[in-house]
Amino acid sequence: MLISLTTDFGLQDGYVGTMKAVMAGIAPGVMQVDITHEIPPQDVGAAAYVLWTSLPYFPAQSVHLVVVDPGVGTARRAIASQTSWGTLVGPDNGVFSYIWHAAPPQLTVALEAPAYRRAAVSRTFHGRDIFAPAAAHMAVGVPLTAFGPEVDDPVRLPVPRMSMSGESIHGEVIYIDRFGNAITSIGRLVWDGRLLRLDPVFAETEPRVIQAELVAVRVGGRSMGTIRRTYGEVAPGEVLALVGSEGLLEIAMHGGHGARELGLAVGDPVEIAAI
Amino acid sequence: MLISLTTDFGLQDGYVGTMKAVMAGIAPGVMQVDITHEIPPQDVGAAAYVLWTSLPYFPAQSVHLVVVDPGVGTARRAIASQTSWGTLVGPDNGVFSYIWHAAPPQLTVALEAPAYRRAAVSRTFHGRDIFAPAAAHMAVGVPLTAFGPEVDDPVRLPVPRMSMSGESIHGEVIYIDRFGNAITSIGRLVWDGRLLRLDPVFAETEPRVIQAELVAVRVGGRSMGTIRRTYGEVAPGEVLALVGSEGLLEIAMHGGHGARELGLAVGDPVEIAAI
Amino acid sequence: MLISLTTDFGLQDGYVGTMKAVMAGIAPGVMQVDITHEIPPQDVGAAAYVLWTSLPYFPAQSVHLVVVDPGVGTARRAIASQTSWGTLVGPDNGVFSYIWHAAPPQLTVALEAPAYRRAAVSRTFHGRDIFAPAAAHMAVGVPLTAFGPEVDDPVRLPVPRMSMSGESIHGEVIYIDRFGNAITSIGRLVWDGRLLRLDPVFAETEPRVIQAELVAVRVGGRSMGTIRRTYGEVAPGEVLALVGSEGLLEIAMHGGHGARELGLAVGDPVEIAAI
Repeated sequence: MLISLTTDFGLQDGYVGTMKAVMAGIAPGVMQVDITHEIPPQDVGAAAYVLWTSLPYFPAQSVHLVVVDPGVGTARRAIASQTSWGTLVGPDNGVFSYIWHAAPPQLTVALEAPAYRRAAVSRTFHGRDIFAPAAAHMAVGVPLTAFGPEVDDPVRLPVPRMSMSGESIHGEVIYIDRFGNAITSIGRLVWDGRLLRLDPVFAETEPRVIQAELVAVRVGGRSMGTIRRTYGEVAPGEVLALVGSEGLLEIAMHGGHGARELGLAVGDPVEIAAI
Repeated sequence: MLISLTTDFGLQDGYVGTMKAVMAGIAPGVMQVDITHEIPPQDVGAAAYVLWTSLPYFPAQSVHLVVVDPGVGTARRAIASQTSWGTLVGPDNGVFSYIWHAAPPQLTVALEAPAYRRAAVSRTFHGRDIFAPAAAHMAVGVPLTAFGPEVDDPVRLPVPRMSMSGESIHGEVIYIDRFGNAITSIGRLVWDGRLLRLDPVFAETEPRVIQAELVAVRVGGRSMGTIRRTYGEVAPGEVLALVGSEGLLEIAMHGGHGARELGLAVGDPVEIAAI
Repeated sequence: MLISLTTDFGLQDGYVGTMKAVMAGIAPGVMQVDITHEIPPQDVGAAAYVLWTSLPYFPAQSVHLVVVDPGVGTARRAIASQTSWGTLVGPDNGVFSYIWHAAPPQLTVALEAPAYRRAAVSRTFHGRDIFAPAAAHMAVGVPLTAFGPEVDDPVRLPVPRMSMSGESIHGEVIYIDRFGNAITSIGRLVWDGRLLRLDPVFAETEPRVIQAELVAVRVGGRSMGTIRRTYGEVAPGEVLALVGSEGLLEIAMHGGHGARELGLAVGDPVEIAAI
């Protein structure tokens, strides 16, 4: 059994350590794995993306604790959700939306049972007082139904936009990583010999086969040329489009911070079009 | 059994990993939990505060390794201290002062026994050569008395100032977290219906009951208005005073970095006074 | 059994957590210890140094996963190497050079067996798809010979330069840590009463004994004076030369960032000469 942690708490204060302490007390011997604590403050969308890329690689019975929670102290619900990607624990603000798109919730409950919270619940640190105790109790086998009533209308964010029209494919930037790679909603792309197969992950459209050399990627009014296989296909300092580790189209720079260079932000439109 | 780690080493060099390696060799299978490694360099006061907020949430038999040690290589002692909050291991520079205020030392010893140090002790990395081996040996059951002679005069920092005079309550900023919350020495405050009960944690004065709507918080020559229950009671971009997750009065900004906005630093005076 | 991790991935994205997840699935219950994930992007030399300082402190049967990999997606090999300092897993780009200088490779293999990779190997994230699965399988006992053919010509970086000529000792800056200490190739130095014994670690020359008070350290056209025992021998704000925790000569500043103050960079020459 394993508990993962994803927060926007940063690592300089004692907040993360305190949550780990609470969980170690309830679930001693359960491995705790950090996904990240550097989600930009209150950026629910970034957390949704990072979880979507990381969770498939965890053992399926893991518990995933997520605290990116701009609504702490308000009436927003605390929830847990059973999925084929593991048990998700966090605020009801849509942070699990991308996961649910791929792995629909089997059961979602509100975290209300006093037995599985700390005796005194603060108004500002539900990570310590509600979410960490819940995750740890789940990790030692307390069933989801013990935590509170079923929730059938959890908050969902819109999934990233991706659409096809004629020969063009339209998507958007959904995340920018520390290396400056701008990851887009266009995917999953798989090289199959000299062709690219596009199996839409964020749209209900049919797969399509693309001949990379016959298309150009456009972003921010600028052409990236065709879709490349590796950074090394362009000179250092040049920008390019390629297929990232999750099969999504990425905009990058060979040896530099592509998103900064191109002035890209989350939500910016990206297009693949015939040359 | 569990060992926590708190240092100012940062995470970019190999120093933290090296200490963990030393402990894993001596105490294999013992869980190691990071509190933080981002204490501002040599800031003993910040470490004292972070430990004071985090340690109560750990299992009481834990060992807590602390290396914030401006005096490394000088004659300052290395100590370990048994308390009801766990066993503390670190330099004798006052870093445990706040903890001792709440959980008096039951036994404090100097770490002198060569058997529980590395064979060669460097002048600049006692974390690796003295403190980590000591913590790991304690975690596997070596009694404190085996490490060296009792110390009855460990260095103590003054605890934060907090006092009451007439209708006013005076305190100071004691820590600023990454979100820009300026945490003060005024607390613990507990909402009890519509009243706030103040149970002084850093002063030997009697509890007092405050009617939040009849007082104003003043800091840096500026009034924060009354004590609020949540960030949402003020508009985004406004500063406010509220009760933090440890029950201490905090100065914050809704959706911003309050301490930076107000120019606050540790030690700045804070006052609660009748309107 | 223990797996250490050293990368340049940073902690803000989900990359490190994903690798840990992959390993936890293959090797549940095996402790994972971070050395650092803040190696400067693609800085193979910095990684080589950090590994060289950290690995001797780990249990000798540990597995060390290293992903600082500017050549990901190119034809560079993925390798594993058995040494007396543990089993090393990473790209064949010289990152293990300093370790091999101290602990020669007993067996090095190319990681080619599909059974020990993820089924689909991406072009940009071999940490997840090749290196993490390999490290985890090694940690649970799969022998190195099962992973692929022997490699007898792994890439090696030149080890740091250090030489003696007449009364002078010449070396170079090899690493700058977060505190601004500039660590040099001159060492190992051991104080033996009032004398310093120099046992060259990066050169095949005989040990030498130095009288610290008869030499001066020169770097960047500036004299640091003699080699000191502690920071406290100079006033705050002054630069000095002293022996660091690995026995290497370091350039530092009492209470400041010495490398920045002196404008030092990796590769800069350092000299010890008679006064």
